[in-house]
Amino acid sequence: MEGKTVPNIVVGRLPLYLRTLQLMNQEGRRVTSSQELGERLGISAAQIRKDLSQFGEFGKQGTGYNIDFLTDQLRHILHVNKVWDVALVGIGDVGHALARYQGFSNRGIRIVLLFDNNPQIIGTIVGEYIIHDISTMVVQIRDAGIKIAMLSVPVDQAQSVTNQLIEAGVKSILNYAPINISVPSGVRVQYIDPVLHLQRMTYYLE
Amino acid sequence: MEGKTVPNIVVGRLPLYLRTLQLMNQEGRRVTSSQELGERLGISAAQIRKDLSQFGEFGKQGTGYNIDFLTDQLRHILHVNKVWDVALVGIGDVGHALARYQGFSNRGIRIVLLFDNNPQIIGTIVGEYIIHDISTMVVQIRDAGIKIAMLSVPVDQAQSVTNQLIEAGVKSILNYAPINISVPSGVRVQYIDPVLHLQRMTYYLE
Repeated sequence: MEGKTVPNIVVGRLPLYLRTLQLMNQEGRRVTSSQELGERLGISAAQIRKDLSQFGEFGKQGTGYNIDFLTDQLRHILHVNKVWDVALVGIGDVGHALARYQGFSNRGIRIVLLFDNNPQIIGTIVGEYIIHDISTMVVQIRDAGIKIAMLSVPVDQAQSVTNQLIEAGVKSILNYAPINISVPSGVRVQYIDPVLHLQRMTYYLE
Repeated sequence: MEGKTVPNIVVGRLPLYLRTLQLMNQEGRRVTSSQELGERLGISAAQIRKDLSQFGEFGKQGTGYNIDFLTDQLRHILHVNKVWDVALVGIGDVGHALARYQGFSNRGIRIVLLFDNNPQIIGTIVGEYIIHDISTMVVQIRDAGIKIAMLSVPVDQAQSVTNQLIEAGVKSILNYAPINISVPSGVRVQYIDPVLHLQRMTYYLE
């Protein structure tokens, strides 16, 4: 699966480079440099050059990077030159915001299936999609061949829903429930918990 | 401001330890170990012991950690033994979910002021709070002495609102807008962009 030996931390910076290049492109820009990228991101130009050099030669000394070209290359490297279908489980406030979030388009992510266990909202529409009964989740995800899920269920349901997602063949989970979940090797989890980020900053406040 | 020389990456793990201890406490647990914490978090026991040892001696060899005691110590270290008042700017779908999010309570964070620039929602109530006109933001944040803000405005407004937050005295910003923002030294920014997390995982998918 992971033929390349690029460190995780380097992989983690690539989406940031891609996002910045896509914004530059929207600004009508054609060329950039590791210096400029570095200033926008608070990362050293040397680090950016080193990160990118792990994947090839994308710029010429003195002329910088062609934004279109480097964008395409990064989309290819990150496998978002295609669009990934994603299942969203748990349509409370957070799930609702995710289902309607405009920031996925053009970035390789498309939510296609919503699930919840609340009879009062099953069958209703959020964004462009109907909310399905979570009891149909394993079959629907498996049939659709979906490999990515976003999890915004309550803490006490996070692990059991995770187990079902894995049973359904999901390999990547973005977990919004503020609890660590256990997954077998070969399945990846990323976490979003605003409190973790806030507490990283309160440490530095008086 | 930063008298201690604890690496950022260590500080970043402390909220994760705290969250796990608080969950254990809710489970009625009294004592844990670096081994158990490590298993729950996918971090080595040695790393956890090393991280905690930067701040003192919190456990005894063989008897582990008292959960209440270590929780209190971490809340003290992270400065969340008090409750921080937070301003939330941009009450679209994401802001709406944040304003109603139950996960802040008991973790040192309390949203107290909401702002938006949309006349149609200014004056309406979300969660327990009224949405204020963003034109009053600088004065209100300064008067309230608020040091932390969450930013969920559109990309093209993120930098200008940031500049106003800094003018108002904010020192920590959690930015949900998918763009990097510039801040002066002494101000910290953390970012939440689900696509960055998802693209870190698509890299590893076929």
